[in-house]
Amino acid sequence: MLYIIDILGTIAFAISGALVAFDKRMDVFGIFIIAFVTAVGGGTLRDLLIGHTPVGWMNDLTYTYVIIVSTIFAIGFRSKLNYLRTSLLLFDAIGIGLYTLIGLEKGVELHLHPILCIALGTMTACFGGVIRDILCNEIPVVFRRETIYATCCILGGVMYFALGVLPLDHNIVFLASGTIIIATRLLAVRFKIALPNIYRD
Amino acid sequence: MLYIIDILGTIAFAISGALVAFDKRMDVFGIFIIAFVTAVGGGTLRDLLIGHTPVGWMNDLTYTYVIIVSTIFAIGFRSKLNYLRTSLLLFDAIGIGLYTLIGLEKGVELHLHPILCIALGTMTACFGGVIRDILCNEIPVVFRRETIYATCCILGGVMYFALGVLPLDHNIVFLASGTIIIATRLLAVRFKIALPNIYRD
Amino acid sequence: MLYIIDILGTIAFAISGALVAFDKRMDVFGIFIIAFVTAVGGGTLRDLLIGHTPVGWMNDLTYTYVIIVSTIFAIGFRSKLNYLRTSLLLFDAIGIGLYTLIGLEKGVELHLHPILCIALGTMTACFGGVIRDILCNEIPVVFRRETIYATCCILGGVMYFALGVLPLDHNIVFLASGTIIIATRLLAVRFKIALPNIYRD
Repeated sequence: MLYIIDILGTIAFAISGALVAFDKRMDVFGIFIIAFVTAVGGGTLRDLLIGHTPVGWMNDLTYTYVIIVSTIFAIGFRSKLNYLRTSLLLFDAIGIGLYTLIGLEKGVELHLHPILCIALGTMTACFGGVIRDILCNEIPVVFRRETIYATCCILGGVMYFALGVLPLDHNIVFLASGTIIIATRLLAVRFKIALPNIYRD
Repeated sequence: MLYIIDILGTIAFAISGALVAFDKRMDVFGIFIIAFVTAVGGGTLRDLLIGHTPVGWMNDLTYTYVIIVSTIFAIGFRSKLNYLRTSLLLFDAIGIGLYTLIGLEKGVELHLHPILCIALGTMTACFGGVIRDILCNEIPVVFRRETIYATCCILGGVMYFALGVLPLDHNIVFLASGTIIIATRLLAVRFKIALPNIYRD
Repeated sequence: MLYIIDILGTIAFAISGALVAFDKRMDVFGIFIIAFVTAVGGGTLRDLLIGHTPVGWMNDLTYTYVIIVSTIFAIGFRSKLNYLRTSLLLFDAIGIGLYTLIGLEKGVELHLHPILCIALGTMTACFGGVIRDILCNEIPVVFRRETIYATCCILGGVMYFALGVLPLDHNIVFLASGTIIIATRLLAVRFKIALPNIYRD
């Protein structure tokens, strides 16, 4: 079940990468690389920082295959991807929910402080997009004043540790904090929720 | 004492990061991430290259707390940060002095060649700013034709090894080479010292 | 012999980095760093991902010396580098041929799947240029719709494994797949071969 969610998230990330690469009018190789780093970049950065090498995507080729197929699909149906925008948004929200918790639990395994675990989780979910934007010569969208994204991951991470002190089953904690991330992200998109604006304009 | 200097350097780097993020009109999350990578990015890159994982900032949360407080301070007092520009310049000079020597001594511990030690030191001091500028979609300021910065770190590193062949106490070598970095940097700012211009304009 | 080819490739990459840095009007320090990352960035990224630390260029200072000399040469003769453009193109083609196979064989040593080996080889050859372009605030040229470059590396990598199933001497496999990379790259430049254009313009 988790594996299926993981794959759905990978597809959503890969297609979001391909869409940005289309806008930059890259060639097929460029589109694939951008799709790839968007999908696995966050987890790769996390693995590098904690010293888990060879990094994640080298241990299971499924991700590579899924990203290749997603890229081909995105190229073939690029004029029709707009119809999928809502599905992609949903997959992406589910994806960051799961990626955050996967990253966070890597920190827990290493007995890292909860703050670092939440940082690793947020990084896993958000930094693929950061690397995508850097490679596309854009200021990363997650740093800009748009709807909250990383904040949802952080909220879910805080919830994970808050619920963890209660005598709850691990699956319930996992499910509840994942749901928080997905729900706050979808609400943020629906109601255009952003962080407080600190600028006078 | 060294620890206090380290914290002052971290504060200066974090605030310099926040200032660049303001210019790019990032949201609060973006400002914090830019402050964070500016302060710890150089040391993180160094740790990755030499294989010291989990990387430095994961082993002592003090840096994270200091950067959080510095970011909040920078956001709260951003209209008044101009008054602090001279203090920040001083802290930054002290910071690169210390960061260079910390990075350099990591290389010495690994018995690396002096050239590599100096490279690691310079990287520790300068590459947080490089990553900051990349994330902000700018050509890194340290590569541009402005007052010397990395060159001061290299000079201090050369001094470290030059003095090291003399029968001097380690503390004196450390202090003298750190002073070289800080002094040349402050002189460079004061007298607008740049590397020789190789362009005809 | 391989070592000489490696050095020629390093020179070509370093000079190509310096040329981009000139266009951005960087100072001498910036030019050297761009030359350096162009030459060793791909191999460094590969070593980080597979956990080979300290990374490659820390184990043999020859590369650093070659890059320093190449940078000084490029600065001194920058107005005349145009005359060298054809030689540089040739060295660069030879360089990516060798770098691809060096990177690929690191994957073979780790018993990685051929797809990952080819990915590591292509990364070794191409990602120095990617990092160069990111530091220079450009969309990486290898992702843009110009003559094929990474594709040549991938072709050579596929050839390496295809020939590997035959009862051939390893040197012949190495030579043949390297030749494929160099030849397809030179043909691509000569006849302006690009990947199929997926855009309607």
